[in-house]
Amino acid sequence: MPLSSHRDFAAALAFAASSVEHTMDRLLPKGDSDEARVYEAMRYSSLDGGKRLRAFFVLASATLFKVSALAALRTASAIEFVHAYSLIHDDLPAMDDDDLRRGKPSCHKQFDEATAILAGDALQALAFEVLAHEDTHGDAGVRAHLVGDLARAAGAHGMVGGQMLDLLAESRPDLSIGAITRLQRLKTGALISFSCTAGAILGKASDPPRMALSAYAHDLGLAFQIVDDLLDIEGSAAELGKTPGKDAAAGKATFVSILGSERARAQADLLARQAAAHLEPFGDAADLLRQAANFVVARRA
Amino acid sequence: MPLSSHRDFAAALAFAASSVEHTMDRLLPKGDSDEARVYEAMRYSSLDGGKRLRAFFVLASATLFKVSALAALRTASAIEFVHAYSLIHDDLPAMDDDDLRRGKPSCHKQFDEATAILAGDALQALAFEVLAHEDTHGDAGVRAHLVGDLARAAGAHGMVGGQMLDLLAESRPDLSIGAITRLQRLKTGALISFSCTAGAILGKASDPPRMALSAYAHDLGLAFQIVDDLLDIEGSAAELGKTPGKDAAAGKATFVSILGSERARAQADLLARQAAAHLEPFGDAADLLRQAANFVVARRA
Repeated sequence: MPLSSHRDFAAALAFAASSVEHTMDRLLPKGDSDEARVYEAMRYSSLDGGKRLRAFFVLASATLFKVSALAALRTASAIEFVHAYSLIHDDLPAMDDDDLRRGKPSCHKQFDEATAILAGDALQALAFEVLAHEDTHGDAGVRAHLVGDLARAAGAHGMVGGQMLDLLAESRPDLSIGAITRLQRLKTGALISFSCTAGAILGKASDPPRMALSAYAHDLGLAFQIVDDLLDIEGSAAELGKTPGKDAAAGKATFVSILGSERARAQADLLARQAAAHLEPFGDAADLLRQAANFVVARRA
Repeated sequence: MPLSSHRDFAAALAFAASSVEHTMDRLLPKGDSDEARVYEAMRYSSLDGGKRLRAFFVLASATLFKVSALAALRTASAIEFVHAYSLIHDDLPAMDDDDLRRGKPSCHKQFDEATAILAGDALQALAFEVLAHEDTHGDAGVRAHLVGDLARAAGAHGMVGGQMLDLLAESRPDLSIGAITRLQRLKTGALISFSCTAGAILGKASDPPRMALSAYAHDLGLAFQIVDDLLDIEGSAAELGKTPGKDAAAGKATFVSILGSERARAQADLLARQAAAHLEPFGDAADLLRQAANFVVARRA
């Protein structure tokens, strides 16, 4: 049953999550060799957790270009591996020092710091191994394109650069909205953008649809982050599955600390509507992505 | 001037080191953006250091298959980025906790732990970005092949798995020679093997020459590690540029602790001769790789 047969967003999201989970499970290492501790840590932190929103973006955008389910699921798995690695490393004591992730002890609490560092490193390598494999796409040019785009999104000019900015932003309540926007565009926006455009790459789409999806991702990623900041103020650990209130405690500037809750909420809603507007060229085929924009601003966790 | 014009190994190694250094410098991020701290850490730990033996293996094997200098240098840079990332993460307090690397403060001492973790993460991503780029090879199939092989060599079934074994081996003086061999084959052998076969992949060589280089790398990698263990006992920090005697202090089993120095030395010499024997099909063209085998067992650091 393809994703596109789901007209309801919640059902489609659940379907995407369980499909990608199944694919990730098959791609992750397992066995009882002496080094299996790192396999276990990789599985612990990447399986059975999260909304799988990035995977959903890959699968939903792939339906616009008649991409095979296998290609989309392997690409979605690669992105989720990178996302999982980034959470493991972000939670480390030297970084955000978080004991709780997705309602469970974070990787270094469940295992130890060394194992957590290695599990993150191996998950990043696995992502590129999966993308480069011919099962992901018969055209090697597509595979190399995916590897290059994901590597850029994950690296110093993307996610890692954003995390560096985020660490430097601690105890800097004076950051401007422009600086915070740039930080978030790198830290979370780059990977979300890759998730939304991967389907177009897999389907060898022309530039205009890929650009439209990139614009959708840009606005949606920012809306997503603003809502994250709102939930960090308003949410509870039980709802979030992670420790709330950390940004305020760290004296960190966020969209909410600068704009206030009300204006931040209005800004997120505006961005979500803007995101949906970029989908116009795709007509009804993009309905799930439209619903995703609503979901992102309406979510409680 | 191509590498093959050097008949003398020391001159060829120095030439390879300075060429790859130049290429890496151009590929590494630079700039004065707020997140430039992570760029600096990437540069600090990957430039101006090490023998560049892995880069040499790429360039020397590439000369056997008429590979362009640019292709070989970019591939060599990617491997050196992965090697540099692994050293940064290995030196972290939660891992081997080493303050000294290549005669300088290790990355987390020079910067801080968070920056070191991020610099390693970004160097890994950069390696795959470089390999996937069309400047590395005109044939996308070759690029995807390189990415897949490097990802496997670096990941849970390669370098990271070996590092996990190495951490678990601490306080296990009872490890067998077989277990230590497997540990080293994963931890350092996988990346050396990729370095020696990358030229064959770039040159679209047939299986037999690639297998011969893989066999060469297998024996050479083990000889390299045995000599590392010998130097760890015999060397000084000034010669090594890192802290010596750590394995013995950690109660870790090594080739030397099990075999004794004399038999370990004899075993390394035997492996180096075996390695050179695998190069027979290449005739004189493989002379630099033969000299490299001698160098690996004769080196003092």
